[in-house]
Amino acid sequence: MEGRQAVRELLAAGHRRVIEVLLGEDVGRAPILDEILALARGAGVPVRRCSAEEIERLAASDVPQGVIARAAPVEPTELAALVGAGAPGVPFLVVLDGVTDPHNLGAVMRSALGAGATGIVLPRHRSARVSATVAKAAAGAVEHLPIVLVSGIPSALSYLAQHGVWSVGLDSAGSRDIEGVEVLDGPVAIVLGAEGAGLAPLTRARCDVVAAIPLLGPLDSLNVAAAAAVACFTVARHRGAAAGIDRPGIAPTGPAGS
Amino acid sequence: MEGRQAVRELLAAGHRRVIEVLLGEDVGRAPILDEILALARGAGVPVRRCSAEEIERLAASDVPQGVIARAAPVEPTELAALVGAGAPGVPFLVVLDGVTDPHNLGAVMRSALGAGATGIVLPRHRSARVSATVAKAAAGAVEHLPIVLVSGIPSALSYLAQHGVWSVGLDSAGSRDIEGVEVLDGPVAIVLGAEGAGLAPLTRARCDVVAAIPLLGPLDSLNVAAAAAVACFTVARHRGAAAGIDRPGIAPTGPAGS
Repeated sequence: MEGRQAVRELLAAGHRRVIEVLLGEDVGRAPILDEILALARGAGVPVRRCSAEEIERLAASDVPQGVIARAAPVEPTELAALVGAGAPGVPFLVVLDGVTDPHNLGAVMRSALGAGATGIVLPRHRSARVSATVAKAAAGAVEHLPIVLVSGIPSALSYLAQHGVWSVGLDSAGSRDIEGVEVLDGPVAIVLGAEGAGLAPLTRARCDVVAAIPLLGPLDSLNVAAAAAVACFTVARHRGAAAGIDRPGIAPTGPAGS
Repeated sequence: MEGRQAVRELLAAGHRRVIEVLLGEDVGRAPILDEILALARGAGVPVRRCSAEEIERLAASDVPQGVIARAAPVEPTELAALVGAGAPGVPFLVVLDGVTDPHNLGAVMRSALGAGATGIVLPRHRSARVSATVAKAAAGAVEHLPIVLVSGIPSALSYLAQHGVWSVGLDSAGSRDIEGVEVLDGPVAIVLGAEGAGLAPLTRARCDVVAAIPLLGPLDSLNVAAAAAVACFTVARHRGAAAGIDRPGIAPTGPAGS
């Protein structure tokens, strides 16, 4: 685990055993580092100062930000735990069928968690592993968002259907605007395909709906993490997730300065 | 320039002089490579086969995908061209105040173009340069989305205000939901701050509105590229950008398989 936000959330969440925190000798003071030190002290996790070279040598990513933590691996969850009687709220899952770029996987996890998703579903063998790079891009989301590893996405979608969860595939060739999909406020799984290739045929066939984010301009697709962010926050809006936030219209009186 | 989509769009757009295309000897056949070869032939651009090692040595990114093009640099545009009488449609600008990560900058450009933005505004000295890494992450958007380099973001926002363009800052501490901002269907600039730090105080002060994407869960911010994607497609929706796309509701009859 590396990166300041990722290490802070690792310690703050307290779900995993943390063996030690390594802090580069060259890092200056920052509030988030103070937080990390306080959390490590509180949890009885040893903090070792080491050289910038050692941090760089141990780091998997280009930018470890001077902080690395050694921790037990992330424990995956069972799909049944996310859709069964004890599920944490109405299921809102994000299913990634073969996203292999670790930055994209991490970014999707961060957006999904922020939009209120209750879990992420990945194929065991055709996905980026939940590595330090993923965890850093997820900025702590790997500590909080349940991860399910399944042997096949199509059979996972069938299982979800049997449990009343709608699968909404996202594909730039989808003929319907995701905004018009009426089931987003119920139990739902947003299904995204691999970078470039999109939804696999069997995955697409198992989706209840295949929708698109309408695109303007000459390009024919979005980055998978961008598409996931737009789709997840569309779900969040449909679910009234913003209920606690002031949503008044803003009466235009002309731009400031005009 | 490297990456298949980026090189294809470079050649397809035809805005820049392309000196040569380098193709790795080890790359297999793919429709997009055939497209690249046809476009290069049509434009009289020489294509040189070279070893995988040479491609790797010349590449700035980790994954050049076997294709590199040498081209004249991207020509920036003037702000006046995007908001003046000859502006391409109602201004919809994305202003990035100090985004230094090239993947984020490229991803923002790709999403902005797909949402119908008419230009991107960057500070000349505190931004990632429009490098090969940016262009690859933008998947061709650098060929199509006008780029404006300004000496300061606050003065650019003042200029925009004088020309009737609303500046909507995005900040996780914003008290209003961006969904409730009523000016998104007019001339508008979405303003995003640097990764981590958010909007600079002077930039924030010059924004007409500071809005947030409401977040659930324990994390307190989104990745800047994810936030930009959500904000840009919120604008697109408000602008009725999807007018040409079928938007019927989908009558739920129960998930397939249930």
